[in-house]
Amino acid sequence: MKRFGSLMLAGLMLAWTPVVRAADAGPYAPATLAVAREIQERALAGSGAFDFVESLTVRVGPRMAGTPAARAGHDWAMARFKELGLANVRVEPFTVEGWERGLESAAILSPAPQHLHVTALGYSVATPADGVTGAIARFDTLDDLLSAPDGSLEGKIAFVDKKMARLQDGGGYGQAVVARGRGPSEAARKGALALLIRSIGTDSHRFPHTGTTRYSPDVAAIPAAALSNPDADQLNRLLALGGPVTVRLTLASQAMGPLSDANVMGEIRGRELPEEIVVIAAHLDSWDLGTGALDDGAGVGIVLAAARILKSLPQPPRRTIRFILFGAEELGLVGARAYAAARAGGPSGSKERHQIGTEADFGAGPVITFNADVRPEARPVIDAIGRALSPLGIVPGRGPSSGGPDIGPLATAFGMATAGLGLDGTDYFDYHHTADDTLDKVDPRKLDQSVAAFASFAWLAAESPVGFSPVERTRE
Amino acid sequence: MKRFGSLMLAGLMLAWTPVVRAADAGPYAPATLAVAREIQERALAGSGAFDFVESLTVRVGPRMAGTPAARAGHDWAMARFKELGLANVRVEPFTVEGWERGLESAAILSPAPQHLHVTALGYSVATPADGVTGAIARFDTLDDLLSAPDGSLEGKIAFVDKKMARLQDGGGYGQAVVARGRGPSEAARKGALALLIRSIGTDSHRFPHTGTTRYSPDVAAIPAAALSNPDADQLNRLLALGGPVTVRLTLASQAMGPLSDANVMGEIRGRELPEEIVVIAAHLDSWDLGTGALDDGAGVGIVLAAARILKSLPQPPRRTIRFILFGAEELGLVGARAYAAARAGGPSGSKERHQIGTEADFGAGPVITFNADVRPEARPVIDAIGRALSPLGIVPGRGPSSGGPDIGPLATAFGMATAGLGLDGTDYFDYHHTADDTLDKVDPRKLDQSVAAFASFAWLAAESPVGFSPVERTRE
Repeated sequence: MKRFGSLMLAGLMLAWTPVVRAADAGPYAPATLAVAREIQERALAGSGAFDFVESLTVRVGPRMAGTPAARAGHDWAMARFKELGLANVRVEPFTVEGWERGLESAAILSPAPQHLHVTALGYSVATPADGVTGAIARFDTLDDLLSAPDGSLEGKIAFVDKKMARLQDGGGYGQAVVARGRGPSEAARKGALALLIRSIGTDSHRFPHTGTTRYSPDVAAIPAAALSNPDADQLNRLLALGGPVTVRLTLASQAMGPLSDANVMGEIRGRELPEEIVVIAAHLDSWDLGTGALDDGAGVGIVLAAARILKSLPQPPRRTIRFILFGAEELGLVGARAYAAARAGGPSGSKERHQIGTEADFGAGPVITFNADVRPEARPVIDAIGRALSPLGIVPGRGPSSGGPDIGPLATAFGMATAGLGLDGTDYFDYHHTADDTLDKVDPRKLDQSVAAFASFAWLAAESPVGFSPVERTRE
Repeated sequence: MKRFGSLMLAGLMLAWTPVVRAADAGPYAPATLAVAREIQERALAGSGAFDFVESLTVRVGPRMAGTPAARAGHDWAMARFKELGLANVRVEPFTVEGWERGLESAAILSPAPQHLHVTALGYSVATPADGVTGAIARFDTLDDLLSAPDGSLEGKIAFVDKKMARLQDGGGYGQAVVARGRGPSEAARKGALALLIRSIGTDSHRFPHTGTTRYSPDVAAIPAAALSNPDADQLNRLLALGGPVTVRLTLASQAMGPLSDANVMGEIRGRELPEEIVVIAAHLDSWDLGTGALDDGAGVGIVLAAARILKSLPQPPRRTIRFILFGAEELGLVGARAYAAARAGGPSGSKERHQIGTEADFGAGPVITFNADVRPEARPVIDAIGRALSPLGIVPGRGPSSGGPDIGPLATAFGMATAGLGLDGTDYFDYHHTADDTLDKVDPRKLDQSVAAFASFAWLAAESPVGFSPVERTRE
């Protein structure tokens, strides 16, 4: 705190030197920009974000929505927010449809018996206890499966083999993930016994990647699982031999009915516009397979470390910064939807206005791009923030940004502006939704850079001379 | 074949040019060295070794000793040897004590419930159906466990946490593997319920590494399993919190009694000294977890591709080259011991003398070093072979070499010389004995270089003007 005070003084002095030129400053006072730079320097010197990730993933471990471990996660987060001295620290409960994985296995029965590494898609129904057995019917993509004649998959296990591309921005995910969401019901429509998909992941290790599926109500639900990439390759090689390849899939997953879960949040109240909210978010829940270090322990670490730096400023920012750790993101943004539903439309008595939001939910950094979706009047402010982020190696873009998965429901409900601090996703899908998402994959220094970006963004957004919302959205 | 004929002609012509100088040739005629170089060029241009590895790992898959899959492996190897036109192609059966893994799981019960990724050590006894549960007693090394007071592990699960170093020659393995072999019985002597070891592997993925253990007959056998490296790290972090860490381990492994297995072999008969044998070996069996692509499908591919090139020479070498694919290496060199026992000491009626042997059992290459253990009279020949291997980037050393695991019993039984074509093991222990040992980890070009090394070595060893054996061994 003391250290920061002297840094602040240096920052204020900097404001009067030629180092920060008025032409660069744009809508911000030089002193405001100097604080942003000091925030960055401090984060880069060691933000402590890694320690938060370690504490969460070790003391709580995996924290699947609706489980006792998720509740342990809420307690952990409450304690951290309180330690940081945030205001209005609270748990906001909601209900989520629980799901439990249970034992799962698969094997090639012929022509060459061998085990396959599979994991059930989230919300998949179980197989009978002795599994389902059928010949594989392979499709390059979900579109190819959609083109299969009706009834042509009777007695078979459908296999959608779409490979995900490795891209810095994770752009390969969207193309591949459609098979996970829609695949099971579409395969069922053609008569399939079950669906296997190639894992939506970029690694070549025998970790299958889970993730939710969505059954259509108009067709019977069939079991659905992901194969690891090497297992999908092996299936292809056996199919290339020409004869039928018979596989048995056994899943013991079960729906757990409505369970209690929660969002956990705290805030730094704004000094001038406390009803205007800047949302800095991550999600607290994880899949059951790993310890959720990258997804989204890293995001939780970024949010908490950013909160600590921002809380230590000599004075709070103009607007309120709300730090939200959403629950049940993995099961369909359930916490974010509940947060939005509780505030939108109803006579809440609150005058609060959500100005802009961003979520860290793409691994452990570094942040490499910055984009935002704001009302036109705020565009110069976004450009100024982009310039302020550039010393971190961040490239400002002109594209829109969803702000992150949990930001979507808030943007829709509140017409809230969104900002995307784009984390480097080159390796993210090597681990995403696998048992291998563990602490050893997190690089503390990359995390520090991410904290520098999120914290300085939060400061500048909360200091903006103009509001960012409401945003008129015509796309989608 | 035709192509090779013309290359041979070029080789013979080279023998009369200054390119191969007499001073370099040493004990070999220039024409003999020219053939070695042609063998290398041909292998580097595409040896087809990868195709053998693919065929074995896809059509047969995992091939645990004593199983139907191992028998499928024998049939596969017989067919390959016959296709290559080798002589005396045969299966030599032996008996191995079978072992089956069964289901296996482990979990931290407190203070933070979470799954652990474990795999039983080979020959481990099972736990009761509901597992064994105990607090963890951690040791840095097996030596530290040996120093624990008698009875101090009563009711506990011992955990030996020795980390394996990543070294090019796999030198970290020996230091770590002692805990796997002796650990269970030593822990039992101190009263432990079960033993966990940190995986003997250099990766940081959640794959546990299996491998056999050896129980002492004077103490009750306790269940023993390996934790993946990230799981061992996690256990350490929880232990660092200070309180007890309680783990449940459940193994359903079982001894299968004596089962039939076999070595498979074929040879190129020597044109002058057919009773003198040069052994080029690999092992056909694999662990059950992966498809044994690196261990030892790669070795099998190297041996078969080398055999194909050597068989295509215009004339056979002076001595016989025997290509042996041993069985049950993973369960304790059972095939190699059976091979040696069948030939050593007894009145076999055979005049054959095993001159020198080497095994490819350290992944998919490239070969980076060459060492040998021969009688002193043969040292200049080894030096000349070292010079002939150097165009492949192979560094000749002056150290001894075991020749590979399965070569050991033959060397002991026959006083056989050994040669070590040292494969680059930098990454080998990332995959060794894990489910992740699959075809995608094999680089065809590195394999080609390894074929170049093994085939040209075999040629030169079989052409040597002097014999390599017997070797007087005083060490051990």
